[in-house]
Amino acid sequence: MTEPTVTALARAARAASRALALSDGTTRDAFLQRLADELDARRVAILAANAEDVARARAGGMGKALLDRLTLTPARLAGIAADVRQVATLPDPLGERFDARQLDLIALEKRRVPLGVIGVIYEARPNVTVDCAALCIKSGNAAVLRGSADTLASNRALLAAVHAALTAVGLPTEAVGLIDSPDRAEVEAMLGLNELIDLIIPRGGAALHQRCRQQSRIPVITGGIGICHLYAAASVDLDRALPLIDNAKTQRPSVCNALDTVLADRRIAAGLLPALVERLAAKGVSFRANPAALAIVGSHPAVQPAGPEDFDTEWLGLTLGLKIVDGVEDAIAHIQQHSTGHSDGILSADAAEAAAFLHAIDSAAVYVNASTRFTDGSQFGLGAEIAVSTQRIHARGPMALEALTSYKWVVRGDYAVRP
Amino acid sequence: MTEPTVTALARAARAASRALALSDGTTRDAFLQRLADELDARRVAILAANAEDVARARAGGMGKALLDRLTLTPARLAGIAADVRQVATLPDPLGERFDARQLDLIALEKRRVPLGVIGVIYEARPNVTVDCAALCIKSGNAAVLRGSADTLASNRALLAAVHAALTAVGLPTEAVGLIDSPDRAEVEAMLGLNELIDLIIPRGGAALHQRCRQQSRIPVITGGIGICHLYAAASVDLDRALPLIDNAKTQRPSVCNALDTVLADRRIAAGLLPALVERLAAKGVSFRANPAALAIVGSHPAVQPAGPEDFDTEWLGLTLGLKIVDGVEDAIAHIQQHSTGHSDGILSADAAEAAAFLHAIDSAAVYVNASTRFTDGSQFGLGAEIAVSTQRIHARGPMALEALTSYKWVVRGDYAVRP
Repeated sequence: MTEPTVTALARAARAASRALALSDGTTRDAFLQRLADELDARRVAILAANAEDVARARAGGMGKALLDRLTLTPARLAGIAADVRQVATLPDPLGERFDARQLDLIALEKRRVPLGVIGVIYEARPNVTVDCAALCIKSGNAAVLRGSADTLASNRALLAAVHAALTAVGLPTEAVGLIDSPDRAEVEAMLGLNELIDLIIPRGGAALHQRCRQQSRIPVITGGIGICHLYAAASVDLDRALPLIDNAKTQRPSVCNALDTVLADRRIAAGLLPALVERLAAKGVSFRANPAALAIVGSHPAVQPAGPEDFDTEWLGLTLGLKIVDGVEDAIAHIQQHSTGHSDGILSADAAEAAAFLHAIDSAAVYVNASTRFTDGSQFGLGAEIAVSTQRIHARGPMALEALTSYKWVVRGDYAVRP
Repeated sequence: MTEPTVTALARAARAASRALALSDGTTRDAFLQRLADELDARRVAILAANAEDVARARAGGMGKALLDRLTLTPARLAGIAADVRQVATLPDPLGERFDARQLDLIALEKRRVPLGVIGVIYEARPNVTVDCAALCIKSGNAAVLRGSADTLASNRALLAAVHAALTAVGLPTEAVGLIDSPDRAEVEAMLGLNELIDLIIPRGGAALHQRCRQQSRIPVITGGIGICHLYAAASVDLDRALPLIDNAKTQRPSVCNALDTVLADRRIAAGLLPALVERLAAKGVSFRANPAALAIVGSHPAVQPAGPEDFDTEWLGLTLGLKIVDGVEDAIAHIQQHSTGHSDGILSADAAEAAAFLHAIDSAAVYVNASTRFTDGSQFGLGAEIAVSTQRIHARGPMALEALTSYKWVVRGDYAVRP
């Protein structure tokens, strides 16, 4: 049996990761600048390759939303290059020394180091190829990338730019490998390479995350699934709640931090829900309401009774659940039962009530008086993100450069022996 | 098919973990004090149960070293209780707020929270049952414990003390569950419960770690395997190096941070090795030397030529590899090839050389002029440890209370909407 391609790629990436770990930040930033330049210079070739992918996908019957994700335009490619230049401006996450302490016999500190080799498995989004290469190299990691078969021509063209930039700055091209085969067995093989790959980041839907979790011998960052709640408490500012809920629901309904359910306190439900339904229905939102909410807004044509699964559904579109609850404890109980632990919030003027909510709700991001749409590396001021983790090991919430690092303990003594 | 015991235990632990996450530090410390008292009060019953285990194990032909690990004595039990009281004095790892930042529209901070449910799989060491219960509850986590069948009577007696202490302070007894069946299928079932258990910590030999890594759908902390090196550089202080190497090798040879290989710089080898062999051979150490080292100390009866596997062996006993190297680069190359990434060090008076070594060697703990035996939660001033991680995700090196936590992002705005 021939060795799977991914094993050779991962072994080469492991070797390259040693050089990367020892490289300085200036070289890694020079790579990023050069990569952005290469993307600009290779615009025609990259767009032509992408047009091949798009034509093939369209002929194969790919749906409109996926086709849109697959498509590169001159503006989108320029945006990708701009993002790479922005990553170059971020502080070097490596080498930082922290948690220093002087003990009787030894001096201790932690020093930030790369994770090593990161495996990324994603779908028909060519921008992910560049994003991941940029974030991994910036943080001193090698990467093994597995895009979708639908994106192969685009990814090869983008990888050529990555390799040209690596070569230009004297870093090994093996630092970024692309699994260049549509064979699904390559993914299975990849998930078993725990000696060569340190972390698997799936970027895609629930099925991909589930498959990685089931099959992988390598730690997996799962996330990106958000059933998100906002609880409008009795003291909510009704006028300001409307644009906030609107933002959380409609600014970009297809993403994981978009709002799925509004929990309205019974005391303000009659003040909030009719105006909310009016405002959001005008933007095309339809509603699934529990019986009590239905009693208030059930006559509106956009509102229908909530079915048994509705409060456990991530809508990823213009649907919103409405439920009336009896106070903060009831809201907390609903969220604890139905949340995926991504982003949940309270709208309240009562500091004690907000504190109780923050204490009880254990989601990656917990909000007071802000839209759930802020859960994002860039909105959190982290500069960039490679994933949003909803698991609890290693990193939680938006994962930026620091989440792609580990640390080593540095111990100094004066010929110290353990007593 | 009946549900495996572990599934019911883990589901109950998951429910209990919610109560623990909301409990205050005073209650958790009261649990620890009470647990220590219960261990004292139940001394006769616990020792009797342990004597049953020991008699059964001895009749079954258990080896001397394992029998020793299995055996509790009044002094050891008192030591376990003292350790529990010491954990009670450590700061509460929960609730800490960190990484606070004010952005234009939102204020951000991270708040430390428990991981949730920790699964621990260990061998015939009853002290681990108490250690893990203490560290997990202190950090607000529930625990599902799987000891060895050989320890079942001891573990049941210890668990009774844990449950009595939980009840006494009003915490749910389901917070600490013990898989009370010798059936190996329970372990397999446990490793598949990724919805109920957040982290698996194996405490045992390489085979156990390997099996967990292979079968688990839950993140696994692997570690505890140490092929540890000390490089004696040209500028080493020979007089002070001898007691240091002695300490690293002989203070407790059976553990993972004990020294396995000395790399002697060619320039000082003739000054170091004869005295080292003399000193350590008197303590029963035997040596495996590469040809160049053999040329210096080969006539000593305790020295034999190193075989092909010897520099890749964790000795866990009174054997020491000796190799002569040509300077720091050669030492680094040897360590990069043979180390398990646990604890490696340099003995040198040359700051630049030491800095190069610290930069290049990427082990969980990297040493300058200190014994590798310091790699330990207590020696690092962390108070206690649940494992020593040699993997790179989540935590590396000695894992103390903070390594049993995650965090949530707390976001506050004034009805902030994402632009």
